[in-house]
Amino acid sequence: MKLHTYFRSSAAYRVRIALNLKGLQAEMAPVHLVKDGGEQFSAAYDALNPSHLVPLLEDGGMRLTQSLAIIEYLDETHPEPPLLPPDARGRARVRALAQAIACDIHPINNLRVLKYLSGELGISAEQKGAWYRHWVALGLQALETQLARDPETGRFCHGDTPTIADCCLVPQLYNARRFECDLTPYPTLVAIAERCEALAAFAEARPERQADAQ
Amino acid sequence: MKLHTYFRSSAAYRVRIALNLKGLQAEMAPVHLVKDGGEQFSAAYDALNPSHLVPLLEDGGMRLTQSLAIIEYLDETHPEPPLLPPDARGRARVRALAQAIACDIHPINNLRVLKYLSGELGISAEQKGAWYRHWVALGLQALETQLARDPETGRFCHGDTPTIADCCLVPQLYNARRFECDLTPYPTLVAIAERCEALAAFAEARPERQADAQ
Repeated sequence: MKLHTYFRSSAAYRVRIALNLKGLQAEMAPVHLVKDGGEQFSAAYDALNPSHLVPLLEDGGMRLTQSLAIIEYLDETHPEPPLLPPDARGRARVRALAQAIACDIHPINNLRVLKYLSGELGISAEQKGAWYRHWVALGLQALETQLARDPETGRFCHGDTPTIADCCLVPQLYNARRFECDLTPYPTLVAIAERCEALAAFAEARPERQADAQ
Repeated sequence: MKLHTYFRSSAAYRVRIALNLKGLQAEMAPVHLVKDGGEQFSAAYDALNPSHLVPLLEDGGMRLTQSLAIIEYLDETHPEPPLLPPDARGRARVRALAQAIACDIHPINNLRVLKYLSGELGISAEQKGAWYRHWVALGLQALETQLARDPETGRFCHGDTPTIADCCLVPQLYNARRFECDLTPYPTLVAIAERCEALAAFAEARPERQADAQ
């Protein structure tokens, strides 16, 4: 397996965690999203992934895109340890938590969106920071409320073992800290992320631990 | 089952299509996202869904959020007709196509994002239209390239029966037309959507066919 990744990409970070949790080795192929205007726009990468996004996982001649689809594929093809609960209701809950991050928070604050805001729309650095923190706060507050009141929340987002939801939560909180978001209103999320980061699978997936980190 | 929906919401539209494809009846509970500052912010809806987003599906005491998680739940609990392929690779492909819309295009152009751009950032109607069309064009172009060159594309996004990917494609193209995006560069997508819309399950889910349409 070969993972096209960028150390700072939240979406690639999710897949790195999932690979580690499964105990799978993948060759890391760095795609620098900033240098020289962005290596994701190279002809070579365009041929692999016309969306110009990371991650991309190559496995046995297949090219898989979209972090959540990749993680579900890994979970189906390498079932142990499972990253989704055994019951339909539990799976729906975990997928919804993951998507609350992957659909409601992350895309709005992605690198290319921030670039459009600064470039085409000419907003200030201060306005850009406020934009980032606005969507993070909105999304994390909803997630905190949901997790704090639900008895299915355990040591992790769902029960006492990591799931796809935790693979999304940790990179989102990592990035929120990088953009100086105040995380004190989200004690449940912070506590779950701390338990995750105590595991080698999560710690080794951190951006600064990657070979392409600069 | 009870679906909290808004006629114009792309995400609710996806779930309406899936319910129809499964032949399932759900009570429709409209949440008007614009009227009176937005019914999604009412205390009653906040208690049901602290993210203040639609859709929300209530089923047997469970509250399900996030359109893709809801559709996968419906597919698991009502397997016929299947909305995902039987093989892991096919499922990965279909989920990735669905997420290319649900994560890469739709969230950036959601109502609340457009409101922030006009309100807090004070951009003009013209800039807002350009923003909308920029992200639609970027996302649809990648999707067109991917579908046009892949032999697994059939009469629908994956083979010859509708899947979760088609449940996402049709609402996205519907909205793109509403915002006057030029769809001529995407003949594969347009042809698939036309085949979908010839089916009652898709036609009856259209925004203007809903009781809350205004």
